[in-house]
Amino acid sequence: MVGPSRLMTLLSCFELGIIDLLRDKPGMTAAELGEAVGANPAAVEQLLHLPVKEGFVARDAETGGYRLDAFGRIAPIRLRQVREIMDMVKVVMLRQMFYLTESVRSGSLVGLKELYDFDGNLYEAVGEHRDLRESWATMMDGVTTLTDPWFFRNIDIPRGARVLDLAGNTGLGAILTHQLSESSGLHVTTFDLPEKQEECLANFRSHGVAERSSFIGGDVFASVPAGFDVVLVKHFLDMFDKRDVVRILTNVYQALDVGGQVNILVPVYPDDITEASSAGVDIFPAYFLACTMGQGGPQQLSTYRKWLEECGFKVTKAIAQDLTAMPGALIAHGILSATKVA
Amino acid sequence: MVGPSRLMTLLSCFELGIIDLLRDKPGMTAAELGEAVGANPAAVEQLLHLPVKEGFVARDAETGGYRLDAFGRIAPIRLRQVREIMDMVKVVMLRQMFYLTESVRSGSLVGLKELYDFDGNLYEAVGEHRDLRESWATMMDGVTTLTDPWFFRNIDIPRGARVLDLAGNTGLGAILTHQLSESSGLHVTTFDLPEKQEECLANFRSHGVAERSSFIGGDVFASVPAGFDVVLVKHFLDMFDKRDVVRILTNVYQALDVGGQVNILVPVYPDDITEASSAGVDIFPAYFLACTMGQGGPQQLSTYRKWLEECGFKVTKAIAQDLTAMPGALIAHGILSATKVA
Repeated sequence: MVGPSRLMTLLSCFELGIIDLLRDKPGMTAAELGEAVGANPAAVEQLLHLPVKEGFVARDAETGGYRLDAFGRIAPIRLRQVREIMDMVKVVMLRQMFYLTESVRSGSLVGLKELYDFDGNLYEAVGEHRDLRESWATMMDGVTTLTDPWFFRNIDIPRGARVLDLAGNTGLGAILTHQLSESSGLHVTTFDLPEKQEECLANFRSHGVAERSSFIGGDVFASVPAGFDVVLVKHFLDMFDKRDVVRILTNVYQALDVGGQVNILVPVYPDDITEASSAGVDIFPAYFLACTMGQGGPQQLSTYRKWLEECGFKVTKAIAQDLTAMPGALIAHGILSATKVA
Repeated sequence: MVGPSRLMTLLSCFELGIIDLLRDKPGMTAAELGEAVGANPAAVEQLLHLPVKEGFVARDAETGGYRLDAFGRIAPIRLRQVREIMDMVKVVMLRQMFYLTESVRSGSLVGLKELYDFDGNLYEAVGEHRDLRESWATMMDGVTTLTDPWFFRNIDIPRGARVLDLAGNTGLGAILTHQLSESSGLHVTTFDLPEKQEECLANFRSHGVAERSSFIGGDVFASVPAGFDVVLVKHFLDMFDKRDVVRILTNVYQALDVGGQVNILVPVYPDDITEASSAGVDIFPAYFLACTMGQGGPQQLSTYRKWLEECGFKVTKAIAQDLTAMPGALIAHGILSATKVA
């Protein structure tokens, strides 16, 4: 019940600049901090109770001065990542979740409609609303940075393969494929809605991969282009319910020749939901149902395996990250590789 | 970071009626629940992952049927209290806290302004906005029911005393004084803004205490009426910063004769904020700064004692509830009794 207030109290200490001030000038009192950030010192003292209780910040009982405790020992880059996720929860989720029940009943994003007068999903809304875009994209870039190297270490792309990055947006996935895959001679094609083409090709040029990359415009729900050896499906399937996932995978199956493979990167729940490491179920259902899609949400690894098999694939790999070995991480991703067999 | 989504995911299971359905018909599947509550079964399954993980609800892996687990063992009245607090956090706090930083900077409730176009504090806003009033008043009634019996067991009101209930709203505190105090022959006067008089007197009549109760209209910041042996200050001082608390207590001191006493009931933080039992700091700063007052928040018991002494009082009692002995409770209250000495 105190979850929302804990998040916002901690985030507000960052937003007000208190944490940065204490890093530069340890020992500042509530009165000094209040003057520096333009806030009532009594309010600063109230906000700092929580980080003091949690050991993030320490307070000297004699002087009343504060200094960073655990926050001072966390690497700045890691602290920035934590703040980015807190900001995403604030901007993309906090107010929107007020309408979770109405969103589930209607299968639509009531919060986006009420708060932004927007009909559609978050991925469309980020095009029009800068606050949503900046908060969400910053967080997603962080997720990609953390998970894609793991993905490319764990899949096998044959040398010289023709690779299709499904729903590849504006080319980041294709660029990462060139950067992170150890296979040589790859040609990577981003497949997404036609309106992404211009920005995608510009990204290819600015990253020096234009000659080994291309763009095809289309809609994964209509059909997937043929002529590729490997299809990548990253950060995508968790947006949909089973019916749509099966439609997408069926279109991939039909586009591949025998021997062609699909490699999927997706957040997964552990097969035993009661495991402590299922932290994903604390956030994803509300994230997808109330804030981003009005449907969808990750599945268990075994569920994705079953759905691949229902579409005709032979699953050759199904692995998941071990959340218990990833301190501070909220989300375990899974990789599923599958082949179209004769 | 997952706090807001945890709260709303659990609350939505109640709001959709899923928990009530499972109490009546254990074993319902996501498909059956979805049909019954008018929601996509895949969304119901996503929402139920969290209560299953936490052991509140159990899922039969073979049938896919759900039944109440811990939620079935919690007394219904206790479960209702938990839901009332979750609802208060949703309605009074969730969206409002988005503006915590702006509220702290301005010392005003930016969330109330943005969401309700209301200038003022929550206690004024509940007069105009039914959703806020119902959610907040239900929660406050629950708090009063839990804490006031403890308060009256722990203070000494002399027989036949003339009692003033400071900021007594529409008479509930006076009525509880008659009901819960073991002293006989009391006359209790509610002191609050003049516009509360009519409803207060009606409450006295409907509770059969009209002959032993009265109402005085006024403003605690201007002056407190004289002629009373005992002043009660319940659920009030935590709304203000030190300057205002001292103004109120000074006015009480000036109104009392030598030997007169004040009894205060207020949420308190433990003297050692790093104690695990300081759960209050997880919620109160955001509650007061962003959602109800734009200032204020509870203090440590020792702070209130010091402020009473600064106003001239001799403190005769200062006790606090032990949160560790109150399973599930978020908030520890304190009692301070003090006397005006010659």
